[in-house]
Formats: sequence, structure tokens, C-alpha cells
Amino acid sequence: MGIAGTLAAGRAAADSLADVPPREPGADLSALSERSKYVNIGRIPEAGPGRRNVDPSDAINSKTPLDKLVGTITPSDLHYERSHSGAPDLDPAKHRLLVHGMVKKSLVFTVDDLKGMPSVSRTVFLECTGNGWENWKKADENVTVQNTHGLVSTNEWTGVPLKFVLDLVGKEKGSTWMLAEGGDAAGVARSIPLTDEIMEEAILAYGQNGEPLRPAHGFPIRLIMPGFEGNLNIKWLRRLKFGDQPWMTRWETARYTQLLAGGKARQFQLRMETNSVITSPSGTMEIRQGYNRITGMAWSGHGKIAKVEVSTGGAKTWAEAQLSYPVLAKAQTRFQLDWMWDGQPTKIVSRSTDEKGNVQPDRESFIAQMGTNALFHYNAQQTWSIDAAGRVRNVLA
Amino acid sequence: MGIAGTLAAGRAAADSLADVPPREPGADLSALSERSKYVNIGRIPEAGPGRRNVDPSDAINSKTPLDKLVGTITPSDLHYERSHSGAPDLDPAKHRLLVHGMVKKSLVFTVDDLKGMPSVSRTVFLECTGNGWENWKKADENVTVQNTHGLVSTNEWTGVPLKFVLDLVGKEKGSTWMLAEGGDAAGVARSIPLTDEIMEEAILAYGQNGEPLRPAHGFPIRLIMPGFEGNLNIKWLRRLKFGDQPWMTRWETARYTQLLAGGKARQFQLRMETNSVITSPSGTMEIRQGYNRITGMAWSGHGKIAKVEVSTGGAKTWAEAQLSYPVLAKAQTRFQLDWMWDGQPTKIVSRSTDEKGNVQPDRESFIAQMGTNALFHYNAQQTWSIDAAGRVRNVLA
Repeated sequence: MGIAGTLAAGRAAADSLADVPPREPGADLSALSERSKYVNIGRIPEAGPGRRNVDPSDAINSKTPLDKLVGTITPSDLHYERSHSGAPDLDPAKHRLLVHGMVKKSLVFTVDDLKGMPSVSRTVFLECTGNGWENWKKADENVTVQNTHGLVSTNEWTGVPLKFVLDLVGKEKGSTWMLAEGGDAAGVARSIPLTDEIMEEAILAYGQNGEPLRPAHGFPIRLIMPGFEGNLNIKWLRRLKFGDQPWMTRWETARYTQLLAGGKARQFQLRMETNSVITSPSGTMEIRQGYNRITGMAWSGHGKIAKVEVSTGGAKTWAEAQLSYPVLAKAQTRFQLDWMWDGQPTKIVSRSTDEKGNVQPDRESFIAQMGTNALFHYNAQQTWSIDAAGRVRNVLA
Repeated sequence: MGIAGTLAAGRAAADSLADVPPREPGADLSALSERSKYVNIGRIPEAGPGRRNVDPSDAINSKTPLDKLVGTITPSDLHYERSHSGAPDLDPAKHRLLVHGMVKKSLVFTVDDLKGMPSVSRTVFLECTGNGWENWKKADENVTVQNTHGLVSTNEWTGVPLKFVLDLVGKEKGSTWMLAEGGDAAGVARSIPLTDEIMEEAILAYGQNGEPLRPAHGFPIRLIMPGFEGNLNIKWLRRLKFGDQPWMTRWETARYTQLLAGGKARQFQLRMETNSVITSPSGTMEIRQGYNRITGMAWSGHGKIAKVEVSTGGAKTWAEAQLSYPVLAKAQTRFQLDWMWDGQPTKIVSRSTDEKGNVQPDRESFIAQMGTNALFHYNAQQTWSIDAAGRVRNVLA
């Protein structure tokens, strides 16, 4: 009996509308269509690894509910958030972007200036470099995939190509670095190397999933850096400065530098790695014997996802999952696999490979290389254990 | 002096953060990131062609603000809405889908049954067959593109392929039509011919832009029919019945049949036509002499958009616009064109061509073919006039 037979079996035949609830009158039409009162969905503000259920003023990030989402787009109000001094709601009429440094003519732009320029739209993932840190040293078996991997989201971003603005100010050839600074109180600022890839792909965005950016995501202007650390995608962008060396801001010395196993530190590790996670079944869910659909998300800062393999036998054997199309470079790609669970305890895990041939490492290899002193760029394979009762739990491998 | 020079000219050089507002502290992180208090965006509920500013209980549709959106995705709460008895918020735990008629085994499905099956995600436009009716007979010069074309939107829909459910019930070969019925009080029901294209592409959707459907858009289950009339995309789906001929419901006799010029009536005109509209500059906007970016959306129920041409000289000369990528079949595609306006009064208009070679007609040709007794499937080219003061107005041609 195949999947279809399994799903149809055991159901009572029915041939009448008596088996279906009666029709219902509805609410008036309105300016905005709100969510159903039956849908309970939201992000989880946290204060760092393992620090949940904190006072909102202590929270430093808010995680996307990957276990409750479908498809590939993250709704704008559920896109993950990581900020260093909360989310200001800046007045777009007063906001300005200063572009200066090694340029022929320094300029200040209004938001309307930028919105009037040629634009580009691109669907890409953003990921906090701390995503996955929950499982770096130990695994809390009571957490969900929202807790373990909720610092990654995918939106369609719209704005002006960076290179267009650089033509306006006339960037000097000797300038190989750009400082991007945000308008929040923390004034997050990062030095960005002006590689060909970044010159070609960076966007000064004012739109998110078709609408204006939301304050939590940088309204009115945000730098979008496809494939690179979330913190480089500077929100509330107020300044771009050009130079010939990095500025060594405290965000790249004290904050986003990480200590490796041998005592050396890694700086300017900017690209996000090849990654994937099974979102269903996942932590705290329960499954039943028989047919189960396995689904999840894969992404890579190197380009497109080439394939995702899934093991339902503790990483001993692997099967290739089906990818949802279109597969876009540097965007999350959904995968799924049909699975008949025999009711025996097991472990399920996914492993992605991108178009450049990068393969998501198993946890043992990852720790061997990175040690346990670091906090960022965790992309080891995620394992979920399933017991005889069908309970799904977060485990290290 | 090119576009870049024009945009940079006349600006004061600036080289100091004194030209940029100070940094601002922000709000705490939360479960949902709301819109900025500075963003004023919403749909417009209307009671039919030209019947605006009505009591909400009289409204029959609510239009997408195309003039305020960017990129290609429509935010879920701004997706256009057309309903015949308001939007019920059905309890997903109680909702059922009956599948019966010419099948081997009639079955009733719960929402969880459907969510557990193999799924597909697809980004497609939906369009009310009445979109454009504002301009069928006359043009109100005080309306926006939201008024004239706001009954089309594009979302990523996720659900079960229709063909998967048909395998479960075992559709009989002789069944060539499907009746789809909604759970709203009006009980909208349409007969759908089971062509190869529809069998391959129809989706029983439970997801919209990554999240559960919203009540206004059919929560918990909606039929998605890529490329076909909005009213065939049955919301609050409660029943699929299979047969060998159409049911001739009142929705396809009294409602969605249209009278042509010669007195004949056209029935089952189901596919939405090749269409486009300039969304900026558009009705009630004002532009300035010099550089202006022209942008808009194009779509076709036949497949992908192949090209969009724009005239800035009253449809006498045309230039090919740039398309945003990826161009997806049966989804809205954004186009844009750089334009230097010389300050003289003129008319701007767009014309789309799809991959099957269908060209959006000018208004004169369209009326010659369709007459003025009909209400549906208006896809004539949209013209905006611009006077010497830069005021943009809706006109017929």
C-alpha cells in the first residue's frame, strides 16, 4: 500500500454535505485583512543562548517560528530581529543618508531621493551570525526549531543597487572598504570589503515583501548584503564611508570576532555557511506511525542550494529530498521527503550541498574544526531524535 | 549629462554627520514587528465601479494599493479581497472538505489531513475578473491606480496539489468537470473544466506568503487556480464534486456570464488576459521635470511575461522596459524604464506581451471587440496623462 493508500485508508466514506459544517456569514471588508483568531503565531524574544522568558527590555533577538511557517517567504512581521538598542521608528521625512570618504563628491540623500532611483528586487535570506548557538555546547531537549534555528528568514527586498549610488558620488578607485553605520542608539557600524560580488549585489533597500521596511527591519533604509552576516545588513542606514582599510569598529573587534580552538581568533568571517534544518517533524512535535512528510529549509551564502539529503536512520543512510522551485541564490529553499515511519525509535537529520560544492558538516567535524569557544557561524547538521511514542526532541547527534 | 549626473546635480556637497539626524533609541523587541507609524497604507473597500466611500457593510471588494507597493509580492493583509457575503473566520478544527461525485471512494478531509500531505509552493497572481471595470465606459480623472487596477495581487501560495487528492479518491476517467464550493454564507460555487493544465497546476492551499491563509483569503483552505478568474479560486473550500458536465450554478449563469457587443453572451471565459499597468507615475501623483523612473506591473494567465513596452509619447513610440527577475509564469512581473521628462504635456502607457505571443490591446481595439455591455476581463492598455504642471491623471487613451 503506497502513500496514497495509507492516507485514504481507515477513513469513513462520505457522500453528503451533512459531513461538513454549515456555511457561515462573514465580517465586513476592511483596509487590512488580519490573521484568524484561531492562528497563534509569533516570534520569541530571547536574551541570548538559553535565556528565554525574559523581560522584553532584556531581549536582544526575536526568533522566526520556522515550525509554523510553510513555503519559502517569511511574513514581514515574523522576520527574525536582532538589535543592540531596540528598534527606533525613524521619521522618513527627516532621515538622511550621508555618503562620503574616498569619493569625488560627498552627498546627502533623502529617502525620496533613493525611492526615485532605478531599483532592484531580490529574494534573499538574512541570518544572524549567532543562529544555531543554542546547540553549540549542549542540547536542551525541550526546545523547538524556532529556538534552535529561528535567526534566519527570507524576504523580497527592494531598493537601489549600491553601485548606482557609487556612480553618483564617484567612488575613488583606491577605495577598497566601505563603512556602513546605522541610526539606532547603538550605532552599529561595520567595515565591508568592496569585492566584485559585493559591488554587484549590495542593495540600499527601502522595501520588504512589497511594502515599506518595518522599523524592526531598518525603516526607512537598510543595507542588504546577500549571503553575508546579518549584522552587515545595517538597519536604519545613515552613513556610508569609503576608505582603503577597515575601520576596526568595536563591532568587529569586541563583538563579531571569534576565538577558535587553538587560541587564534577569526575576524571578518563574513559569509554565511551552507546550512539546513528539518522544520517538521521537529523539537517538541509528536508524530504517528505510518506516513509522515519531512520538510525543512536549506540555504547558503555561497549561492544556490544544489541538493538536500535527509537521513531517517541517524545519518547512516541518506535519501535525496525534493526541492521547491524556483531555487534562488542566497535564498532559503524548501525541501521535503515522503517517509513511512515504522514506529521504532530513530534520529532524523538533513544535510545540504550548495552549487559551489560546499557540504554542511556533521557536528563532530564542525567542533573538531571550530572548537567550543566560538559563538558564531554554527552550521552543523541538526539531529532530531524520535522515541517509540513518536516524541521529537532536540539532540546533539 | 546622464541620469546619474542629473540626480547628483544641484545637491550640496556634505562631508559631516552634522548633516544627518542624531541616532535614536528604540522600542523593545516583540512577537510581531508592526508597521511604522509614518507608513499610511491600506486597501480601499468599494461597492462596485465608481461606488467609493461607502458604508463597510455595503462593500463588495477591497483593493490593493499598487501605487504604494514595490517589488512583486503583495503583503498578505493587502492582497485584494472580493467576497459575496463577507469573510467568515472558520474554525480549522471543525472545518471539513468533502470530495465526492464521480470518484471511486468519496472522502472527507480535515485541515490537518491536508497539511500532512506532500505540498507545493507557487507564486502566482490572482485577479478579480472585474479588475479594470472602472475605465470600461468612462475615466474618472481623480482616481488612483489602486482604484483602476487594485483587484490584482501576487502571493506565494502553499498547499496540496489537486492531483494528489484525486489519486486518493480515485477520480473516474469520465469525469471532466469539477464543482468547487465555498463555506461562506453565499456558498460561491463554480464548475471547472479538468483540462491537463488545471489538473497539473491547481492547488488546495492552506498557506499564503509563508503563513496560514487569512480569513479574507479563504482560511483554512482555498482552491488556487493559477491564471484563471479570481472567483474560481474558491475560498473557505468545503466541497469538490466530480462530474461529466458543468453544474450551471447561478455564479456562472447570472453572475459571471457577460453580454458582448452583438448581443451574444460569453460564458466560461475563465483565463485572465495579458495585462499591465504603470503604477508610478500614476493617477493623482505629481512629477518634476528631469529624471523620472517609470515602473509598473505586468501579468498574464497564459504564462510568463515576455516583454513590456512603455510609451512616453501617447502610444506613438515605444521603448522596451527592464523586467525584474525571476520572471515567473502567471505571476506579476515588475518593469521599469528610465525617463527624462522635458516638462511638456504628454501621455504615458504600457503594453505587455506574454510568452505565447498575446499582446495587450489598446482601448479602441478592445472596445471594438467586446463592446460596452460587458463588465469582466477588461485588459486594455492604461493611459495616464501628464499636464505641464506635472499632474498625472487617469484618461481613456
